[in-house]
Amino acid sequence: MARNIQSLERAAAMLRLLAGGERRLGLSDIASTLGLAKGTAHGILRTLQAEGFVEQEPASGRYQLGAELLRLGNSYLDVHELRARALVWTDDLARSGGEAAYLGVLHQQGVLIVHHVFRPDDSRQVLEVGAMHPLHSTALGKVISAFDPVAHSEVLEGDRASLTGRTVTEAAAFEEVLDLTRARGWALDLEETWEGVASLAAPVHDRRRMPVGAVGVTGPVERLCPDGAPRTELVTAVRDCARAVSRDLGAGRF
Amino acid sequence: MARNIQSLERAAAMLRLLAGGERRLGLSDIASTLGLAKGTAHGILRTLQAEGFVEQEPASGRYQLGAELLRLGNSYLDVHELRARALVWTDDLARSGGEAAYLGVLHQQGVLIVHHVFRPDDSRQVLEVGAMHPLHSTALGKVISAFDPVAHSEVLEGDRASLTGRTVTEAAAFEEVLDLTRARGWALDLEETWEGVASLAAPVHDRRRMPVGAVGVTGPVERLCPDGAPRTELVTAVRDCARAVSRDLGAGRF
Repeated sequence: MARNIQSLERAAAMLRLLAGGERRLGLSDIASTLGLAKGTAHGILRTLQAEGFVEQEPASGRYQLGAELLRLGNSYLDVHELRARALVWTDDLARSGGEAAYLGVLHQQGVLIVHHVFRPDDSRQVLEVGAMHPLHSTALGKVISAFDPVAHSEVLEGDRASLTGRTVTEAAAFEEVLDLTRARGWALDLEETWEGVASLAAPVHDRRRMPVGAVGVTGPVERLCPDGAPRTELVTAVRDCARAVSRDLGAGRF
Repeated sequence: MARNIQSLERAAAMLRLLAGGERRLGLSDIASTLGLAKGTAHGILRTLQAEGFVEQEPASGRYQLGAELLRLGNSYLDVHELRARALVWTDDLARSGGEAAYLGVLHQQGVLIVHHVFRPDDSRQVLEVGAMHPLHSTALGKVISAFDPVAHSEVLEGDRASLTGRTVTEAAAFEEVLDLTRARGWALDLEETWEGVASLAAPVHDRRRMPVGAVGVTGPVERLCPDGAPRTELVTAVRDCARAVSRDLGAGRF
């Protein structure tokens, strides 16, 4: 088995470094964080800059992510079959539910948001496509963890941070949450990720009945769960949406 | 002067290849298109796959772009100062103008859309953040070409494709369009990119008075230009928005 290419692995590590935390870093910081000689780090950064993957702030000389990543990320979305199938259904879900709708897939140790339909009111909202949500506390993440064995391993091995006073972090209690999710076919996040925010999600399956992602709605806890439990019609709408997308992907009806 | 790193340049070329045209390609296609031995191409693809930059379709074995690009592209937006400064102003522009608002920057030979505010009605709209628009035919592109010398070189050297019957492709005529754009401080695209669609844009400058991008609105020609010329209040709104963003970036008022 041939080995992977070291300079590429190092370049990817630099991009990950620039994507988290400080986001604008000098050559010395990058080299020392990744344990590279400055000359080695500079050669990689210079090439990444020439290709548009990083940019250098003129004033400070510090590096940050480059525009080519946005262009390529957009092309990734264009070819995303699940997202294409889900566009109309999640739009309907946001309209009928009156809340923001999301489509998420497993990526690394989290949920990558690949589609986000704004809540159908006139309020200012921030697009979250490309953002990562936690696996262990969000409804999308619980659904994916419950149905996808790879996600299940990630979430059990990963750090289940206590994000609010309600986050379930202990392994046995979390497994019970996943059992419940599998039994009823949907998951709830009742202020377990953000204070005051609840979310609901259901799994999407493909033609081989493999779990490929989750769809759901997110909104103020008092509107999603007016009496402490989610509104029944919203649960139905989320599950209907997930089933419709699954059918469009070729999953059987039963 | 040290040379750039060849394996990184090749990896970037693969990502660009997968971002255009077919978008799902087999190993042989990728290797032959880029003039690489299959073993060399496979080593790069395997590393890109391990890092999440490409994914392999299980059924066909063909390669496509990977989810990590979406995550990194989103991080690029998070650190984009111009975009951050423009969020509120473009939102106001879309509301007051009743049309979709865009913020674009020069990237390679086109305009990269870094922010897009939907038209404030209830219609279904497709987010264009990360998409590339032509420099020579859109209002954003003309503004950037008129004020940014780098963009000016790109657009003159590049291929100015005839996208509609109205696209200005001939060099001298195009320079006249840019002269007019500089003279009045805004640009118009009257069905020069898409049939039935018009757009208006104005330049954004930073604290050193360097052109850093453009803001504008896009909509049906009959609404933007009811009598063949753009509505005056819309021109004013676009220019006010561009000035407000420029001021927020530190540009002087005069």
